[in-house]
Amino acid sequence: MDVVKAAFEAGIKLGAAFHQFIGSPVSEKNSEVLEKAIESCIRLQPFVLDAKVKINVKKTSAFGYTSLSPEMLEIFVTVKVGNAIVKAALKWDEEKQYPLMELVF
Amino acid sequence: MDVVKAAFEAGIKLGAAFHQFIGSPVSEKNSEVLEKAIESCIRLQPFVLDAKVKINVKKTSAFGYTSLSPEMLEIFVTVKVGNAIVKAALKWDEEKQYPLMELVF
Amino acid sequence: MDVVKAAFEAGIKLGAAFHQFIGSPVSEKNSEVLEKAIESCIRLQPFVLDAKVKINVKKTSAFGYTSLSPEMLEIFVTVKVGNAIVKAALKWDEEKQYPLMELVF
Amino acid sequence: MDVVKAAFEAGIKLGAAFHQFIGSPVSEKNSEVLEKAIESCIRLQPFVLDAKVKINVKKTSAFGYTSLSPEMLEIFVTVKVGNAIVKAALKWDEEKQYPLMELVF
Repeated sequence: MDVVKAAFEAGIKLGAAFHQFIGSPVSEKNSEVLEKAIESCIRLQPFVLDAKVKINVKKTSAFGYTSLSPEMLEIFVTVKVGNAIVKAALKWDEEKQYPLMELVF
Repeated sequence: MDVVKAAFEAGIKLGAAFHQFIGSPVSEKNSEVLEKAIESCIRLQPFVLDAKVKINVKKTSAFGYTSLSPEMLEIFVTVKVGNAIVKAALKWDEEKQYPLMELVF
Repeated sequence: MDVVKAAFEAGIKLGAAFHQFIGSPVSEKNSEVLEKAIESCIRLQPFVLDAKVKINVKKTSAFGYTSLSPEMLEIFVTVKVGNAIVKAALKWDEEKQYPLMELVF
Repeated sequence: MDVVKAAFEAGIKLGAAFHQFIGSPVSEKNSEVLEKAIESCIRLQPFVLDAKVKINVKKTSAFGYTSLSPEMLEIFVTVKVGNAIVKAALKWDEEKQYPLMELVF
């Protein structure tokens, strides 16, 4: 069933992007190029119609930058398999203290 | 629908494990502890019933080890959401030259 | 000069381990196997005499685990190049809000 | 001694960049934005005077992209500690089958 496969593919993209890039050095100086690079990596993958990445630089260190952490990362992805289009999002859930990945209906 | 969410969750697990651990230093000396560590990381995540990881150390360097590469990694994961159980696998596809992630029926 | 090369090699090991494993799913259930896996990866690399990794699981989420974050990771490494032995450590610096990597004399 | 610390810092930068970004989806479509993002991450770090990253897309898959692999990545970094300037490079060594990181004199 296309929608099942599309949901699987959407999950791959979110899990991949999170675990590839968490830890990257980031500040307001490079957050935009890092967003664009992550988007470009997601868009290369099969079945992806669109990807949008937002890095919210919420903290820093004595050295003027920090490591990309789960609280700072938002990802929106749209995938299409056959006729099924599925949207999914990664967003930090403050109450659960967790980078929640969810299908968006 | 539970099966759609289960497929999404299975995709997250495969995408996450691949992109977290590709690049890790590996040889036959530590492939087993690395397999166990990756399995333990997958099993911590929500909805996971079981996870199995196999590293096939297919090459080396002049220094007696290599970086974990896509050709070397196999992952099998079983997730359960509500009453829906979904199995998925990551396996190198030699013809496609690609680490194929697929739902297993 | 051997000590210069040894310091370079020590830096490689700390930078590598931090950026490879930050983001890994972790709780008290798997922190020990993850420590052993990271140690095994460091020990495979050239010039390493010894490596010790400590994960301090300082937080969790509603799902009973978290992502390995810079505050949680300590690494000690000893490298030898020629007759020069260099020790280095990675440890979270609370004041600087930074995972400080330093040569240890 | 400044040169020892500079060599240590140079090692950190190369080890970090390699292990953070190996595995990223890449093709000729996004290699330039990925190069710029990696350079930006290195330049944020302490003591860095300059960083240059080159991705040589040497292979692909049936899906038109591949994972960033050690054979494809070149990094040049210049760091300064006190009055000591150290240059270091990461480059694939075909004979050793290894991503060699070296101080450049």
